[in-house]
Amino acid sequence: MEQSRFDKQLDFLIQIDRMKNIERQTLIADGSRRETDAEHSWHIAVMAFLLKEYAVEPIDVDRVVRMLLVHDLVEVYAGDTFCYDVQGNLDKKEREEAAADRLFSMLPDDQRDEIRALFEEFDRMDTPDSRYAASLDRLQPIINNHLTNGHTWRKGHVNSNQVFERMAPIKEATPSLWPLVEKIVAHGIEIGALVDGKENA
Amino acid sequence: MEQSRFDKQLDFLIQIDRMKNIERQTLIADGSRRETDAEHSWHIAVMAFLLKEYAVEPIDVDRVVRMLLVHDLVEVYAGDTFCYDVQGNLDKKEREEAAADRLFSMLPDDQRDEIRALFEEFDRMDTPDSRYAASLDRLQPIINNHLTNGHTWRKGHVNSNQVFERMAPIKEATPSLWPLVEKIVAHGIEIGALVDGKENA
Repeated sequence: MEQSRFDKQLDFLIQIDRMKNIERQTLIADGSRRETDAEHSWHIAVMAFLLKEYAVEPIDVDRVVRMLLVHDLVEVYAGDTFCYDVQGNLDKKEREEAAADRLFSMLPDDQRDEIRALFEEFDRMDTPDSRYAASLDRLQPIINNHLTNGHTWRKGHVNSNQVFERMAPIKEATPSLWPLVEKIVAHGIEIGALVDGKENA
Repeated sequence: MEQSRFDKQLDFLIQIDRMKNIERQTLIADGSRRETDAEHSWHIAVMAFLLKEYAVEPIDVDRVVRMLLVHDLVEVYAGDTFCYDVQGNLDKKEREEAAADRLFSMLPDDQRDEIRALFEEFDRMDTPDSRYAASLDRLQPIINNHLTNGHTWRKGHVNSNQVFERMAPIKEATPSLWPLVEKIVAHGIEIGALVDGKENA
């Protein structure tokens, strides 16, 4: 029997509850545990509309919010890939494409296409909306990392060049927030959480 | 020294990380633990744009999403009040007003006013946007409760009349979803998770 439109939407909405089971590397601000994908997505969606004045290009902030709410959904099947894990990132794209096929096809066709397009645009970072979205996706974890004694950097033996590279979307899309990144990185080096990339150059 | 506009926004965004520490009564779908406020807020924001076709009044769905992302923020100070806790709900309004004063005043004035207005509108449920938002705020936990063997109802010795009363915004704002509520309640009674309110009438 064919599923009704609402049944499809309901099954999808139940399936994505698993975003509450996907743990990221980042800790929540009090350092007590790892943050979930659902929590991260909520936090950056709020950031999107409170920090929109710093977007250097014209953006549609409501579209960015929607993009951020769904940008990590494929991780319910593909899992979270640590951004500084070189090996894990080799097949990340493939794993996430397969997960997108599986997950988004649960939805009615029109909504499948809408969400998939947002997810792919986020990944490509080739529009003002997706560049601004990516800058928030970088900003939130670096702040939480700063608040938790550089937990993620220590764990990954990360150097400051890697962080600057990872944070590049902030420099591009919200350049007035870049001094905060520089301050956080300098502090990370100072407390020994981050290796100073300059010294290895 | 006066805080800069960005410093205020940043402090606020860090403060609301505590939404990841506020546990609700509802369990996540796999039953393994209680859901956090941040996770709940994310989930209903996604629901808002996927279920907008069921809103019986014209709504601005992007505004609803923003409202849902901030509707529980005051709980970072006021805590979560179990909806079936009669005692706790007596001073809920007072506690939440005080929390709103404290939390939202961290923001620059224009954003303080914008977020506070959304929060208050949600609470009043006197507009199409806030009625639709409230219906999702009811729908998500009843679905998770259904998926977790009626956990919340069992804990609160809840009867079906209380559930129907609590779910009333669904009947009003998204009436075509009401049969799902009736089905879930009937099942809750059947498995002994819910007391049948009719029998106590």
